[in-house]
This record gives sequence, structure tokens and C-alpha cells, in this order.
Amino acid sequence: GIVDDVSHSSLPEGEPIETTPAGTISCKFWGLGSDGTVGANQGAVRIIGEHTDLYAQAYFSYDSKKSGGTTVSHLRFGKKPIKAPYLVDRADYIACHNKAFVHNYDLLKGIKPGGTFVLNCPWEGEELEANLPASLKRTLAQNQVKFYVIDAIAIAGNIGLGNRINMIMQAAFFKLAQVIPVEEALGYLKESVETLYGRKGQNIVAMNIAAIDQGVSALKQVEVPSHWADLPPEPLAQLGDVPSFVAEIQVPMMRHEGDDLPVSAFLGNEDGSFPNGTTAFEKRGIAVLIPEWQLEKCIQCNQCSFVCPHAVIRPFLLDQGEEARAPQTFNTKPAIGKGLEGLGYRIQVSPLDCTGCGNCADVCPAPGKALVMRPGDQEIAKQSENWLFSQTISSKAHLVDWRTLKNSQFRTPLFEFHGACPGCGETPYLRLLTQLFGERMLIANATGCSSIYSASAPSFPYTTNDQGHGPAWANSLFEDNAEFGFGMQVATKQMRKRLVHLVQKLREDGSSHALQQACTDWLEGKDDPLFSMQAGIRLVELIEQEQGPVVEEILRNKEHLSKKSQWIIGGDGWAYDIGFGGLDHVLALGEDVNILVMDTEVYSNTGGQSSKATPTAAVAKFAASGKRIRKKDLGRMAMTYGYVYVAQIALGANMNHAIRTIMEAESYPGPSLIIAYSPCINHGIRSGMGTSILQEKKAVEAGYWHLYRYNPLLKGEGKNPFSLDSKEPTASFRDFLNSEIRYSSLARTFPEVAEELFSQAEEDAKERFAEYRRLASVTF
Amino acid sequence: GIVDDVSHSSLPEGEPIETTPAGTISCKFWGLGSDGTVGANQGAVRIIGEHTDLYAQAYFSYDSKKSGGTTVSHLRFGKKPIKAPYLVDRADYIACHNKAFVHNYDLLKGIKPGGTFVLNCPWEGEELEANLPASLKRTLAQNQVKFYVIDAIAIAGNIGLGNRINMIMQAAFFKLAQVIPVEEALGYLKESVETLYGRKGQNIVAMNIAAIDQGVSALKQVEVPSHWADLPPEPLAQLGDVPSFVAEIQVPMMRHEGDDLPVSAFLGNEDGSFPNGTTAFEKRGIAVLIPEWQLEKCIQCNQCSFVCPHAVIRPFLLDQGEEARAPQTFNTKPAIGKGLEGLGYRIQVSPLDCTGCGNCADVCPAPGKALVMRPGDQEIAKQSENWLFSQTISSKAHLVDWRTLKNSQFRTPLFEFHGACPGCGETPYLRLLTQLFGERMLIANATGCSSIYSASAPSFPYTTNDQGHGPAWANSLFEDNAEFGFGMQVATKQMRKRLVHLVQKLREDGSSHALQQACTDWLEGKDDPLFSMQAGIRLVELIEQEQGPVVEEILRNKEHLSKKSQWIIGGDGWAYDIGFGGLDHVLALGEDVNILVMDTEVYSNTGGQSSKATPTAAVAKFAASGKRIRKKDLGRMAMTYGYVYVAQIALGANMNHAIRTIMEAESYPGPSLIIAYSPCINHGIRSGMGTSILQEKKAVEAGYWHLYRYNPLLKGEGKNPFSLDSKEPTASFRDFLNSEIRYSSLARTFPEVAEELFSQAEEDAKERFAEYRRLASVTF
Repeated sequence: GIVDDVSHSSLPEGEPIETTPAGTISCKFWGLGSDGTVGANQGAVRIIGEHTDLYAQAYFSYDSKKSGGTTVSHLRFGKKPIKAPYLVDRADYIACHNKAFVHNYDLLKGIKPGGTFVLNCPWEGEELEANLPASLKRTLAQNQVKFYVIDAIAIAGNIGLGNRINMIMQAAFFKLAQVIPVEEALGYLKESVETLYGRKGQNIVAMNIAAIDQGVSALKQVEVPSHWADLPPEPLAQLGDVPSFVAEIQVPMMRHEGDDLPVSAFLGNEDGSFPNGTTAFEKRGIAVLIPEWQLEKCIQCNQCSFVCPHAVIRPFLLDQGEEARAPQTFNTKPAIGKGLEGLGYRIQVSPLDCTGCGNCADVCPAPGKALVMRPGDQEIAKQSENWLFSQTISSKAHLVDWRTLKNSQFRTPLFEFHGACPGCGETPYLRLLTQLFGERMLIANATGCSSIYSASAPSFPYTTNDQGHGPAWANSLFEDNAEFGFGMQVATKQMRKRLVHLVQKLREDGSSHALQQACTDWLEGKDDPLFSMQAGIRLVELIEQEQGPVVEEILRNKEHLSKKSQWIIGGDGWAYDIGFGGLDHVLALGEDVNILVMDTEVYSNTGGQSSKATPTAAVAKFAASGKRIRKKDLGRMAMTYGYVYVAQIALGANMNHAIRTIMEAESYPGPSLIIAYSPCINHGIRSGMGTSILQEKKAVEAGYWHLYRYNPLLKGEGKNPFSLDSKEPTASFRDFLNSEIRYSSLARTFPEVAEELFSQAEEDAKERFAEYRRLASVTF
Repeated sequence: GIVDDVSHSSLPEGEPIETTPAGTISCKFWGLGSDGTVGANQGAVRIIGEHTDLYAQAYFSYDSKKSGGTTVSHLRFGKKPIKAPYLVDRADYIACHNKAFVHNYDLLKGIKPGGTFVLNCPWEGEELEANLPASLKRTLAQNQVKFYVIDAIAIAGNIGLGNRINMIMQAAFFKLAQVIPVEEALGYLKESVETLYGRKGQNIVAMNIAAIDQGVSALKQVEVPSHWADLPPEPLAQLGDVPSFVAEIQVPMMRHEGDDLPVSAFLGNEDGSFPNGTTAFEKRGIAVLIPEWQLEKCIQCNQCSFVCPHAVIRPFLLDQGEEARAPQTFNTKPAIGKGLEGLGYRIQVSPLDCTGCGNCADVCPAPGKALVMRPGDQEIAKQSENWLFSQTISSKAHLVDWRTLKNSQFRTPLFEFHGACPGCGETPYLRLLTQLFGERMLIANATGCSSIYSASAPSFPYTTNDQGHGPAWANSLFEDNAEFGFGMQVATKQMRKRLVHLVQKLREDGSSHALQQACTDWLEGKDDPLFSMQAGIRLVELIEQEQGPVVEEILRNKEHLSKKSQWIIGGDGWAYDIGFGGLDHVLALGEDVNILVMDTEVYSNTGGQSSKATPTAAVAKFAASGKRIRKKDLGRMAMTYGYVYVAQIALGANMNHAIRTIMEAESYPGPSLIIAYSPCINHGIRSGMGTSILQEKKAVEAGYWHLYRYNPLLKGEGKNPFSLDSKEPTASFRDFLNSEIRYSSLARTFPEVAEELFSQAEEDAKERFAEYRRLASVTF
């Protein structure tokens, strides 16, 4: 629905369209959602609006990724009001904040002759020439574009701002776009830094001021050779052997060209369904640093894979044939472990899918670390081929009992390469679930971060195993997810009940002893996950050539022969607040559903609003001066039913506990509720999201989070159903609070209440622990 | 919107209206909602539909009372399809099932010449002549109506059916209306009895068969004297000194003539508001039996008043002046109790408002009972004048500490004469609340029985005291009542905050020392219920002649000078199920609100659907074969917050505990949740709703219901906040189940599961008690 502002002549007469007034300066910024682009551009609009008599207009278009997605800002400035209801497509100024984009997008589409282009990259001279695609060079030269480069990443890194390049690029914009006099603009910008970052501390303010100064001084104009205008077209990139959906829909959408797709492109998808497993074709290549595997140091614990939020680092087991055809650099070491004798072991990362969070290296327990973070470019060059090869290696998980921390990682994850933030605390849980139950899972997903990163058109991270089996996933509404998943469970139950009836009938009419035996086997083992699958396959093999109403109905519904695993998944905003009424109702109804609450203690997706899971003293939206009320104890509420399995876990605190609890919960023949501690960018972990997994451990050691299980089956054995699985705190609670900005910022913004609320938070945590200890000490 | 089926000629041409085909038999039945009229008439339609080729149509119009309301059934039968979208107004057959209606309604409006009228009454001969109003006699004679009487109450009573006259009146209908041959009809009717009542036991079936036979044989035709046609009009009934709303709107609506009111009758009520306290003008006179007070035996405990669901029996204290002007039969005895020396004491019933449930007499602990149930007619004649006099006696509650069981009953209830079922277990709690906090209560009422009996147009039971102060009441939706009440509380808080600011300003500008002192008094005591009210009155007295913006704003908001008591009220369908998400949220938010859950363990208002409060083994809609899942422990969930006051009470089990708990909850400066056991007609108490209060006692003695309090303030004193206030069960759990049809019927309908579910129910109750005992035994 975007109207081109230079093509009005093609519109029917009598349809007035607002055009941008003469003298309007139109600007376009390509950036990552996570690099501060949007905020900085909003800041530019605000500065101009507040300090001058100019008018401004801003639009933003996004990839629907939680993080690492591309954002395009469209800003217009001018002396007259601007009412252009369309994105910028005739630009005076275009900036590209990420050098990878030069290959991914048609960045300069619509740039005006004589316009300005700024590229953030470390390249100069020949290297620059070598890295720019011919199409971009041609546009620069043909339109006499003024071309500048700036190495904002290096500047930010040197200053200590990490990858926050927003102020640098904003200063460059004010310098070059000349919307208002540059010195005036920089003055306003520096004032705004104080307002924006004052509460984060004066060193942050000083670093951003430095960024502004260097954003101006480090700009370098590039002479555009006139011969670039005549460069021949490049050969079209080969996509290789990809599904037609990927080639015809996904790739154009990923290039921000989805608006150009004709309706006919969606023939076959009229119902709105999208194929699964398509994130594997994105290959975003966004990681600045990527782990390099140190073969000698590796102790084969698989913890790196166990914690990886993005399923990009995995252990592989090679037989002799696979070893033989492996690329030269695909080194392995002899696999350790019963059942794995004679196999080669290797940790392989998918460098183009890695987000570079670094949790794998952070948790690696090998002496001297078996994973070292290296520059992304180099690892992409070295490991891309190795990853492609790894995808041809057969799974060896059946050789071991895979229900353990280590062995679970030999199972192929069926949730991979999603767009959650690097280091996301939620996604390791989901990845693990798909390794344990993926081929028989049904998932009802509440609205929230998890619904976004699990289904961001055009790319979907849930995928299938080599049998073509994988999770069935759907999202209904924020407020009815438990009910939605309950409905799935009831439907499955009903369909399997019908199958029981049909298989009984088949047995009665059975033509052969083998068939009758197969029927009996399935009927007896239909509620065992593995056995029901195998018995189902045997049964189908025996009847798939046969005809008749009973046989045909069984074959039509053969997917239900295997025992299913129903999951209801969401965040604390759903489970503690908006969907709690339904969650409570579903828990009460006693059906065999598994509920996973990924508790970030805040409404993450919508930007950090306080929920009933937010603890005392945390700063959040609607609780700007620190939350006054303690965290709701959702688990203890659910325990009052007596027949609900309830647990709190924190994968980074105790990996064995996490996997054991998940297995136990799933196998419990009634409702299960798992509350999983999930660090989030909203927490502001001061050591960064690359330490999010270890932060979970710190939370438990400080008595901030507690691990427990309530297993109703134990009552039948005369035992206490409750076990407190984490120990008396061994670390300082206050130190933990200080390690996260959501708490530490309170001391700066509201020092008068901070002390009281921090004490209260500690009291609340202690009271909570005391309640758990009391529950654990009851004799039954 | 009712179209008269004989007045089509007055409709514009070209507007076709379906008329009833020639040969249609139109019938109209006036009955009480509780006498089975509707069910029996639905049965008649079903019988004819199932067994013949006739067509039938049925409409029902109701008073919006929970019970004791008038219902008019409109049935049509004929050989052609009937599509008449209006009530019957040309009737071949009219029956009146309640003799009191002859004065209340224009029963024979629209009867056809030669039609049939059946009146259920004990009158014959001269007594009949004396009791029928002239207008009715005139219509009978002028239209040559065939007139029959039948004493269905006497027949039902003799058979053992109590007041269930439905089968008797149905048989009479089939005999006289001749829709189908009577013998055939009676055969079908008897078959239907087996279907309807089979599960209630064979003796119930036999009694209903007897009722059918006697319904035919006991009919007596009455010769209508021709002189009745010429009887002069009666003088119009005098309403006495009533508000114009009562005379002009309420009375016509009560006479089922609301459809005839012109829009102009509602001038002044355009916003939909209705005045309070109007049930006092209904004087329904529906009680068959009414308690007679035995002065000598009375021990002045006031328990009769404490348990009365309808606030119709009250203790009065008379000073010498009042004694002097009392009617002759208004006997008193010397009042017992400190502060009451020299006063006369009397229990007075309002005979025209009593529903005759009999709980007062049932609970009376005086040796030989100080209350005896007597025929209603006689008591109405003897006590009506006494009741009118009692309403002129001044309240003496200020002479005593009224926060006790006995003394609370000297406070005037501000909730009276509502349309809840006789013996309702909910309404004694509400009546008591208004005695304790009425003049400063705000009530948010969830949808359910309580919203119906609290606001049934045209009559409202909430009323005001002699100062004109009473509860403010409103109902929003089923699903948002907690939030609705929370909003009231926040609004009150904000308005009182503004008052604090204004009174502080007034003190600064204060012209006199007295005014400054009054301001200080109020500011210091504004959160004390009694003190804030008195200080507010003093302050208003000092400023009400003054002018100026501050003074005027204070006077405009003077109602908020007294401390308010915010209540959020509803049933278990709201609190455990549909509104639970909001209830939980409001509990969590920590504001000073008081939540009363009247737990009937079933959706009462909509006819008995299972809720999460329904215990294992109870039969309810959606749980016809007994509920499989235990009752949710709402209280224990709320306790997990740690800062919520939580209690379970049962007024009939421990009256002192109930009142003490309510006082404690209300004074707790945070959220309070009281869960009150409330017997309901849906329970099918086998000894009848006249024993509903004592049934609460049985529930606690059997360990079916438990009394406890969780007072967070005790934690501050280093004490266990939880106290278990009911004892180890002393009576048989199974006997309790057998005393209610909701349980006992399971043994007849599903004997194969009944035993298992009854055992499970007992196990669940024991586990619940064990949990409470564990909570009570914790050392803090």
C-alpha cells in the first residue's frame, strides 16, 4: 500500500494525494533493531521538533524479529507541515548502519541525484571496493551520490559502548544532512544524552558525548570513481536447492521487498499457513563474535549446546563413513560414553545462524575453555562448509539413553535459528523441549516474545526431524492460551479414543494373527511415548495396502497412533496476569497438559511493564519508582490443587535438575506447571546477555530464585510431594540485585526509597524460602 | 411490544401479522415461580408435542425475583402451526394457582365469553363469595365463565408433597381444557412423572401419581350467580403515604401492568436509576407459615434475627414513651443486658414480608422454642399493625457495643425484604454486613443470584438508616466485579486525598480556633470509621454557612469525610471461576478492599452448573454423574500472597466466629477475602430450606466445611497468621452427604460410581483438613 511520491501522474485524476512540500529533506536509515537506530532517529525528530520551527515526520518499518531484525527509519524534515502517508522513496540522505546489508538489501533504491550515502563499515580503499556489490557502486556513480564511510563499530568499541553506535551515526547524520546547523544540532544531542542516560550513570553519559564528537570527526568521504557507473550487472545470487516458498516468498520478504509480491505468489497458502523450518534459510550472519571449538580442551559435556538459546552449536557423532567424507577441517576426537565407542565427536557451530551471544563459551566448564569467541567474519569463512556437512550426519541419539543433560544434545533440536534476542533466557528451554519431545509435541503458545520469535513471517523456527515429524504450533490470543491448549488436548484425546475403537474393531475382524497381535500391542502400549510410536508404525505397515472403511479411517488418522505431548507455553504476563484465570481453570480440570511459564518477571515483548511476577524493588514500566508489592507465588497457588505437578527450574543454575524436572513433569498423567527462570534484556544484566545463563545460577545462589518440585504421585507412596531442590543461599542477595540495572537504577533515580525496597525484596525472598522449607519439612 | 390478537384492524394495512389459527385453544396460568407452574406447563407442551399431531406454543413472563415471584405461562394448542409473537390476551382457559393473586392482579383480563377459570383456594360458598373482589365476580358473570375451585394446597399437604401443587393443577388443566381426551392426557402425565422424579425415589413418584388423580376428582364447579354481573365497582385501594415512584411505577409494574406505563412515567429516572428501599412497599404476603413469638420463653439471644435471610424478624427496644403508645398486643419483657436497663424488649416479625422459611424457629435455642410457626393468614391479621408500629421505634444500638452477635441485631438492617429464595444461605451474610457497616458501605456486586435479589426492578432491598445513609450498590459484569470494586476503592481514596488537601488548606486559612481544631481532629482521625464520621459532622456544621472555593468543594464532597468500607461481593461462579483472574489481581494489588464470596458450591443463579467450588461427588449440571475433581481451595491460594486477610466462615456453624471474622477482615488495612458457606436450593437439603442455617453447622461438624482465619498482622507479632477455628469432625461425613439430594441422588442414578466418589469426597475433605492443621501447627 505504499504510494510513490513521484508517480502521482499515474493516479486517476480527482484523487488528491498529499505530496511532500518543496524543500522537504527525506532521509532513510537502515539499521538493526538492536543497534539503537530507532531510538536515535526518534531522538532526532524530537530534537528538531522541540528546538526549531521545522516540521518532521517519521515512519519505521521492521522485520518482525525480537532482536537482530532489520529496521528502516523514514524521516522527513521541512519548513511546511508534512502529511505524506507513505514511506520515503525519494531520499536525500541514506545511511546504512550495518555493513552486511550491502548484500542483503537494495539500499540505495530511490536515492536522489546528488544525494548522500553513509555506510558504517571498517573498509577503506581496495577493501571497500572489493566488498561493495557492483549494483551499489553503479547507483552511486550514476547519481553522483556523495559517499561517506565511518567505522562506528570500532569507535563504539574503543569508547566502551560495545555495539551501541546510535549516537555516532546520529552525529554523522546531523553533520551531513544539514537539516539544522550542525553545531546547534550537536548541542541539542548532547543535552539529550544527559536526559536519556543520566540515570544509568555519569560514565555512560561521558561515553555517549565522546561518541557524538567522534561521529563527526571520523567521517571519511569516499571518491566515487566514474567508471563505477559502467560496471556490468553481477550474476544473480544462486539460492541453491531451496523450497519454492523460500525462493518465491521468503527471500523477497527478507529483502524488504514483500510489498512488491503479487497476490498470486501466495497460491497454495490461501489459508494463511506458512511452512515450518524456514529460519534455516535465513543465514543472517549477524554475529560479531562466534565461538571457535578447541578440540583438545573439550571434555564432551555438551553444556554449550544445552544452553545455546539459538540451537546453533551442536555436538555431532560420526561413524567411519561420515568421517571419511568429512571436509578436511571437520576434525573430530574419539567420542566418550557408553554406546558411543568408535564414533568421532565434534562440536560444530552454524556461523551464519549464530547471534554471537557468547553463553556457550561463558558456561564451558573445560579447563582453559574449549570455546573461544573469535571474529565472526573469520569463523563464517572457516565453518560455513563444515556446518553444511554436519547437516548430512545421521543422528546417533538412539544409541544412548538421551534423557540426560549430555545425551539430550545428541537429539536434533526442532526449534532453531529464531529471532529472539542474543542470549535470550527463554529459548534454551524451548530448544530442550523439542529435543526431548519434539516429534510428538503440540504447542499452544501465548502471545508475547515467544509468539513473536516462534512465528515471525516469513521465517519459522519450529522444524521437523529426518522423518518429517515435528512440533505442531499455534498461537491464539494473550488471554486464552491455556484454554486453547486445553482444547488441543481434548481434541487429541477424542481422536485417540476413536482410534482405540477402530483398532479394537480391526482386531476383531483381523485377517491374520500378525495383524491381531499388532493391534493388541498398540492397544496395550498406546500411552507409552516410544512404544506407541513403534507399535503404530508396525500396525500401519501391516494395513497400508488394505482397503475398507476401518482401515482407511485408521490410516487417515495415523498421526494420532503415537502418544502426544501437549504443551501450553507463554511468559509471566500471560501466566501470572492476563491468562491466569484460564490457566487456573485448566490446571483445575485435571487433563494431561504440560504448562511451561518462561518467567522473565516482566512483560518483555511490550517493553518491560510490571507484571505480578515482578519482584519488590524492580524498576519496570508502571513501577518506575520500584515495585511495592512482592512477586506472586504462582507455583504455591497451583500446589493447592494437590493433583497438579508443579516445579520451578532455572536451567543455568542446575542443568540436571532442569532436564529431570521437565521429563518428570511431562510424564505426569495430569496437569503440570513448570515455572522457568528466564533472564531477559529488560533485566539489564550488567555483565551482558552473554552471561544470561550464569546469571540464573547467581539468582539461585543468592536466594533470589528457588528450585523445587511438587510431585503429587509421591503422596501415593506416603511421601511428601514437595522437595526443595535448591540450597540455603550462599551468595549475597544485595550483590545479585546490584548486578542488574532493573534494580541498581533505583538507587540512582529514587535513592530515598531504594534502601527500603531492597531490604523488603530481601525479606520477601527469605519469607518465600522459609515457606518452601516449611513445605519440605512436612511429614506425610 | 405485545400485539393484541383481536385488534389487527387497528394496524396499518400492508403489515401482515400472524394470527392464531381458528380453533387454537389459548391458556393462561398465574402461579408462583416456586410452585412448579412453569415446569408443569412446559411438561404439558412436551406431552402434547410428543404424543399427538397438535401444535403448541409457550411463552412465560416473570417477576424478576429469585423465588416467590409471580410467573404467568401463556400456552396455545391447535391443529395448525402457531406463530403468534405475543402473549395470550384472548384466553379460553385461565388458572390461578395462588389465592392471594385475586387481589393483586387483573387475572381475568381477556378471558373469552364462555371460557374457563380455575382458582386454587380453600374457599367455598360464602367464604368464597366474601374473598373474591367484585371486579373478578363481575367478569365471571358478564362472560358466562365456567368457574372451578380446587384446594390444591390441602391435597398436596395431605399427600406429603408440601407446597408442590404442579401435578394437581396440571391434571385439572387436562381435565377442563380438553385439548386432548383427558384419559389419554393423564396417562401421558403419569408416564412423565416416572421420568421426572424416578431418580428422586419411588415414594415421590407415587405421591405425584396420587396428585394427578386428585387433581381431577377434587375439582368443584362453582355456580356463578347472575347478580354478580351487576356488582358495583369497588373503591380503589388506598396506598397510603408512599413515594410517587411507588405509586406511579412500582405498583403498576408489580401488577404485571408495566407494559402499559407511558414513557413519561419515567421522567426523572432517565438515567436508569431506581430509588432504593422499595422492597418495603411490596408486602408480598407469601408466607404460608409465620413465626409467633413466645414472650415467656424468649431468652433474648437475638439468634432468630441474626440468621433471618430476609431481615423480617427483629428485636426492638422500647423506652417508656414508646411503651406507652404501643398497640395493645405489642407486649414486651424487660430487656436483659448492660446498658439496656429499663427498656422493654420484643421480637417483632413483619408478617407481610416474611417468606415463611422457618429458620428463625429452627435455630431458636430457648427451651421449648420461643418461636412457633403458625398459619400465615392469622399472623398477618395479628402482627401487621404491630410491625407498622415497630418502625416508629428509635434505634437503641448506640447504648451498647453493637459488634457482638446479640447487639448487632439492635442495629437496623439496611438490606431487607428481597426476593431471594426463602431460607437463602447467602442473604444472612449481607444483612449482617449492612448492620455492621451499612451507612458507609460501597458494594460492587458480581452478577449472580446476589445481583438479582439485590436489584430486581421495580423493587430494591438496599435501604437507608434514619439519617438517610445506606450502602451504595452497583453491578457491572460477571467477569469484572473485583476490578469494578477496585475502581470504586481507588476513586474513594483519590477523593479523600483531595479532601485531606482541602482540609489542610482550610486549617491554614482557618478563621477560628474551633475550626482549626475541627480540621485537626478530622485529619488525625479520618481513617477511623466512627471518629471520622463524627469529626466530619462537626466540621460541616462549622463551615456550612461559609463561602469560598475551599469550603464549597469540601461541602460538595462531604460524603467522603467518613471512612468508607469497600465491599466486593459475589458467588463462587464469579470468585472461583469467571471472575477469578480479576479477583486474584485485585488481591495482589494490596488495596484496602473487602471481598465476600458467598459459596454455594454451584452456579446458583443459572440453575446449578458445576463450578470449581463444587466438591467431588456433587451432582450438578456439567457434572451429572458426580463431579470428578475436588473443590478448589480459593482461600489457600489467596494466603500465598502473605498480605491478604483470608477467612472461611459459616454463620450457622459459629455465629460468634462469623461476626468476629467479618469485623476483623473489614478493619484489616489491606485486601480481605471472606469465603462464606451458603446453603442453596440447588443443594436439595432433604430437611428443607427452613433448616439451611443448621445445615451449615452440620457441614462443619462433619468436616465438610472448615472455619479458619489467616490474619497477616499476626506475623508482625511473631505469631502464626493462620488459625484453624473449627474442630476435628464429630459427625459422620457420609451422613452429611446423604442429607442433601445433590449427593444422595448419585447413589440412585449412578450407583456404580457413587461409592467411589463418596469415598473420594471424604478423602478430599480430610486432606483439606490435614492441610489446614499443618498450616495451624507451623511455628513462626
